[in-house]
Amino acid sequence: MKTVVLKFGGTSVGSLERIKRIAKIIISYKKNNYRVIVVSSAMSGATNDLVKKTKSLSNNFDSAEYDVLLASGEQVACALISGRLKHLGHKSRSWMSWQIPIITDGPHGAARIDKINKKKIIQFINSGGIPIVTGFQGINLDNRITTLGRGGTDATAIMLAKFFNAEECIIYTDVDGVYTADPRNHKKAKKIDKISYDEMLEMASLGAKVMQPTSVQDAKLNNINFTVKSSFVKKNGTLITNQKKAFSDKIITGITSTKNDSKVTIVGVKDKPGVAASIFKPLSLNNINVDMVIQNISLNGKETDLTFTIKAEDVKKTEKLILQNKNISFRKLNYDNNVSKVSIIGVGMITTPGITYRMFQALAVKRINIMAISTSEIKISVLISNKLVKKAIAALHKEFKLD
Amino acid sequence: MKTVVLKFGGTSVGSLERIKRIAKIIISYKKNNYRVIVVSSAMSGATNDLVKKTKSLSNNFDSAEYDVLLASGEQVACALISGRLKHLGHKSRSWMSWQIPIITDGPHGAARIDKINKKKIIQFINSGGIPIVTGFQGINLDNRITTLGRGGTDATAIMLAKFFNAEECIIYTDVDGVYTADPRNHKKAKKIDKISYDEMLEMASLGAKVMQPTSVQDAKLNNINFTVKSSFVKKNGTLITNQKKAFSDKIITGITSTKNDSKVTIVGVKDKPGVAASIFKPLSLNNINVDMVIQNISLNGKETDLTFTIKAEDVKKTEKLILQNKNISFRKLNYDNNVSKVSIIGVGMITTPGITYRMFQALAVKRINIMAISTSEIKISVLISNKLVKKAIAALHKEFKLD
Repeated sequence: MKTVVLKFGGTSVGSLERIKRIAKIIISYKKNNYRVIVVSSAMSGATNDLVKKTKSLSNNFDSAEYDVLLASGEQVACALISGRLKHLGHKSRSWMSWQIPIITDGPHGAARIDKINKKKIIQFINSGGIPIVTGFQGINLDNRITTLGRGGTDATAIMLAKFFNAEECIIYTDVDGVYTADPRNHKKAKKIDKISYDEMLEMASLGAKVMQPTSVQDAKLNNINFTVKSSFVKKNGTLITNQKKAFSDKIITGITSTKNDSKVTIVGVKDKPGVAASIFKPLSLNNINVDMVIQNISLNGKETDLTFTIKAEDVKKTEKLILQNKNISFRKLNYDNNVSKVSIIGVGMITTPGITYRMFQALAVKRINIMAISTSEIKISVLISNKLVKKAIAALHKEFKLD
Repeated sequence: MKTVVLKFGGTSVGSLERIKRIAKIIISYKKNNYRVIVVSSAMSGATNDLVKKTKSLSNNFDSAEYDVLLASGEQVACALISGRLKHLGHKSRSWMSWQIPIITDGPHGAARIDKINKKKIIQFINSGGIPIVTGFQGINLDNRITTLGRGGTDATAIMLAKFFNAEECIIYTDVDGVYTADPRNHKKAKKIDKISYDEMLEMASLGAKVMQPTSVQDAKLNNINFTVKSSFVKKNGTLITNQKKAFSDKIITGITSTKNDSKVTIVGVKDKPGVAASIFKPLSLNNINVDMVIQNISLNGKETDLTFTIKAEDVKKTEKLILQNKNISFRKLNYDNNVSKVSIIGVGMITTPGITYRMFQALAVKRINIMAISTSEIKISVLISNKLVKKAIAALHKEFKLD
């Protein structure tokens, strides 16, 4: 008998009607003779309601109690799913992470699963039961509840698949898979049947909302194949797996765009050795992630302009840190929030020369100005005006034959 | 240093503003050098919301999952209280019943606390911490979450006071103590400073809403003195303690009335030995509690009328059981929901003769007809028309000098 891990996200258990629907999905696997392990998120909205409660009690709510609070959401969802399955005549029970236990290390709010004790769950499955496991959480060695951070239930699913040697791991969500581009930005976007971990990692990091990169990384490290599919409609999803080569004749697998980037330009910086390090060190120490960097050529050898991108939410903090910085001198600071990073991703580009040229050419034809560029082995990102994002995606989608 | 257990009910933690207020109350004890153990219910409304969710998933929701579901409410409240205390600079943490653990036996939804492991909580208190314990719940020997049934957080408070040898146990609620009569029914009602367990038990059983009788019984069995007081206003509450004698010169301590009684009359029952047992046996087997019983004198030796009271919610079930009963024959069944049981309660009546007479006389003067009577060592109850309840309470309150 094959073992399958079924993960349901917040929207998949977002109402009692949705819970009834996913109970049917769970039972369909059981009827097909799978050994089924279910892991669920909190009902959508529940976590936000809890977070809102903390705000009025403290502007810096204790992280350990925050985890206790948030973990209650999955407890509710799992009890409801299990109660529904029992109502339909199936043996099932909820499993809190402390009952299994799922052992984590790392800080509250950003813990990682270290170990999952298999014994009790295996006994329960062997007795014909369907365990419903709380996602997003575990307990640490102090026996306190910890949470895994954003997308944590995906991480729980991947680790359950690892520890229980599951043949399949299905991430049920509110989209029906990974697309060549965001369908809201480009109507001709198509669902991808199969994608490699690395491509998925880049897609997730570069704006595709399907999954958090950390969970993809967990899957890659543990070589867990998983499928992302919809709990709302019955359709094949996207398989994320470990192949190194392209799955199709397409060079590019997908195109992503970001919405919350900001471009910062420091005008007239005194150009001396180490000036870039002087600027970026305090940002790094304050957890501000600098993404793309362009240093203009210093014409007179004395002054230069330095441009870089950060998350829009970090603009104020960045401004403060630059103004406070006594190791640099400059004339002024400019910001631009109306930018977006558009990326093409695909393992095919490793073996295909000229991709960068084709990308730039396709954008140039549409008169789309490129402000900055960054590349990795399997992606090329360009910074453009956010007004031109849809136009750029359409041009690239066509250029790389994804239409 | 004295140890105090502080219990906060659902309305006392019913909003974030209320949680801020009770955090101040908790800190005031800490500042007065108490060793403080807090136990909290779920925020008012939270439990009902969860119960409502189960209804649409199953008309007979699994009792074990029901407990998992409901227990999440206290987890939320305790995390919020503890987070607030930490925000205010005090060492505190939430303690789930499985972390302590609090061990229960008995069925889901009606478990009883068997044992509370003291070690970790004592260590935490010794380190200067204020533990915030989830009320209403524990874990059973299978490591599953159990709940204690209605008023369960009171029971947790009493048992914490027992196991930690607390000098004081304060039940914070939305009323400021136990009254000589329900202030909504009688304006001259006065708060009682001190009341015995037995009187409190009768009061709780006979309509005073302050506490569930089972928690009072727990306190009595373990000889735990406790105080009921308001978390909304700063006032002395009512001490419930183990004295056997009256605390004052008052013979009667309090007057209660019920709202949900029904009177059932079986007219023209064939009178034969054992007929009452034949009628009541199926009711008892179906958990219907028969309260007051009046069997009229059989005039002709062949037929009689049997009258008894039950909870209004049991009327339909009772009717069905009597109509199905093949061991009895009768002419017809009458119901009357417009009745109320009014009771006078006081240990003083043990040593004072003539109380029954004075009660009947006081009611007779006001032309209040008594339909049935039941007595115990420390209470006398009469069944009257519910239209006359306020009048009856006023008459009795005056007669026994409670005004």
